[in-house]
Amino acid sequence: MEIFSAEDLARVITLKNTVEAVEAAFYDYNQGDIVLGGRLTAPCGQPGDSSLILPATHTGKQYYGFKQATTFAGNTQKGLPTVLSQYLLYSNVTGELLSIMDFLDMTNFKTGAAAAIATKYLALPHAHVVGVIGSGTLSRSVLAAICQVREIKEVKVFDLNEEQAKAFAAHARKSLNVRCEVAGSSRECVRNSHILCTCTTSPRPVLDGDDLLPGCHINAMGSYKIDMQELDEKTVKRAALIATDIPEDTAAEAGDLVCLADKSDIVPLDAIMGGQQKGRGSDSDITIYESIGFSVLDLALAVLAHEKCSSD
Amino acid sequence: MEIFSAEDLARVITLKNTVEAVEAAFYDYNQGDIVLGGRLTAPCGQPGDSSLILPATHTGKQYYGFKQATTFAGNTQKGLPTVLSQYLLYSNVTGELLSIMDFLDMTNFKTGAAAAIATKYLALPHAHVVGVIGSGTLSRSVLAAICQVREIKEVKVFDLNEEQAKAFAAHARKSLNVRCEVAGSSRECVRNSHILCTCTTSPRPVLDGDDLLPGCHINAMGSYKIDMQELDEKTVKRAALIATDIPEDTAAEAGDLVCLADKSDIVPLDAIMGGQQKGRGSDSDITIYESIGFSVLDLALAVLAHEKCSSD
Repeated sequence: MEIFSAEDLARVITLKNTVEAVEAAFYDYNQGDIVLGGRLTAPCGQPGDSSLILPATHTGKQYYGFKQATTFAGNTQKGLPTVLSQYLLYSNVTGELLSIMDFLDMTNFKTGAAAAIATKYLALPHAHVVGVIGSGTLSRSVLAAICQVREIKEVKVFDLNEEQAKAFAAHARKSLNVRCEVAGSSRECVRNSHILCTCTTSPRPVLDGDDLLPGCHINAMGSYKIDMQELDEKTVKRAALIATDIPEDTAAEAGDLVCLADKSDIVPLDAIMGGQQKGRGSDSDITIYESIGFSVLDLALAVLAHEKCSSD
Repeated sequence: MEIFSAEDLARVITLKNTVEAVEAAFYDYNQGDIVLGGRLTAPCGQPGDSSLILPATHTGKQYYGFKQATTFAGNTQKGLPTVLSQYLLYSNVTGELLSIMDFLDMTNFKTGAAAAIATKYLALPHAHVVGVIGSGTLSRSVLAAICQVREIKEVKVFDLNEEQAKAFAAHARKSLNVRCEVAGSSRECVRNSHILCTCTTSPRPVLDGDDLLPGCHINAMGSYKIDMQELDEKTVKRAALIATDIPEDTAAEAGDLVCLADKSDIVPLDAIMGGQQKGRGSDSDITIYESIGFSVLDLALAVLAHEKCSSD
């Protein structure tokens, strides 16, 4: 068994190979080569804290594995990350444990890549103005990954924490070579965006659907629980297409989609990529990719990291 | 994070401290200081293979953890154990991973200790003749642990594999200083036993309930799935008391108890130990402890091993 630290993983995992691995994982899942293994939430710590365990099996490449993520709200006061995470990767031939990886940074990396793949398949080809609501570490991963699939020229970022938004903008200008400004309001961030990314843990909508540009593609990356909400009802109603990873799970768990009367309108992204489902219909369609986390992508990234680290 | 191998654990874990830790765990669970975290079975390998994940939280000692056990039937042909297992132990204050342990041998150790505690509280005080059906590694752990709680003088062992039964008997005579003979039949093994232990993976009953001595206590350790069965219907009907770890889980999953009309007759062992439920009623009562595995005991043993190894 090998142990790979966050530093080991950072040496071999790049934005480029992550986006490629995530795209391949959606196709492998579509072909039935990656199989979901359920999910388990165990209580621990204080009320509200938890341990989430997400297994998946890559029957194509013969790996089995699961991500474990503890969420301890009180860690902030202790100077520790709220979420801590490991990936355990096993041989799918013998059940032997192959490696254990510190997966804390990988989750943001993977989520960013998922937004990029959704953008690649759903956003307008010429989309080049991005709005980002929320300016934490996830926002950085999401924007950087989107720059891999579209030629982004202009970015607006909005956050209630203006200092954090300024730091985000400075980082984006420097690392991604794009124009990036802090917006004074959610409306200013939303109204010219071809691609809009929400990356908050808000319990209430962070935008007004009336402000959306026709043709806008939205990556709603923050709301992963029923009591979280980033999109308002107008946004959901205006959308011509709502895509996600596992429609039944997203319908049950994403606060954004509570307002949706017919949950069967939610389409799996892999089926759009595989051609079994229709994607964007017209240039004026508003499209949404709603993400609550997808264990298939964690496994794909763990396999990539394991193979790269082992051959190092 | 620390890694403890099977050898590290073998240096600090003894039969005596395991039996003590398991007894304490039943009491801690009874007091609400250890909390169950559900269970997840994920598909992997070939059809029928699986990964089982069993979390539990020790709110008293502030540990969270889970056992992972892969079962790959094809491993026998590869010269590998069918079951491979790890324990991951976390701080229940911060969610940090404290240690990962090779838990393969610990599971048999723990199961043996559970049989010993059931025997301590349910068998007749003077019980000194033990019958063992099945002679694999689990049988060795079970017999050795029972010798910690009763003064055993005589053992009979029966197995369809006579060579393995002979090796078991020789090992018992040498390591436990008891008389131990191979029985020619299940009946010969059962009929004089004060304590009877079944440790097989049989799909059909391995004994005839008519052969049981009045007052006999049975540890049914093998059947942990609905399609496995060690006890016949007569045995279950003759029993005055059926104890287990989690009655609802055992009722749903143990093939031995499918015949039981009223599943509410199954009593939690911890409640008998804690005095909330009545134990054995008379010297002639037949009692059963039905075990399908109990994550509370895995956690207790992991905590013991972690604390002993860390302070080494």
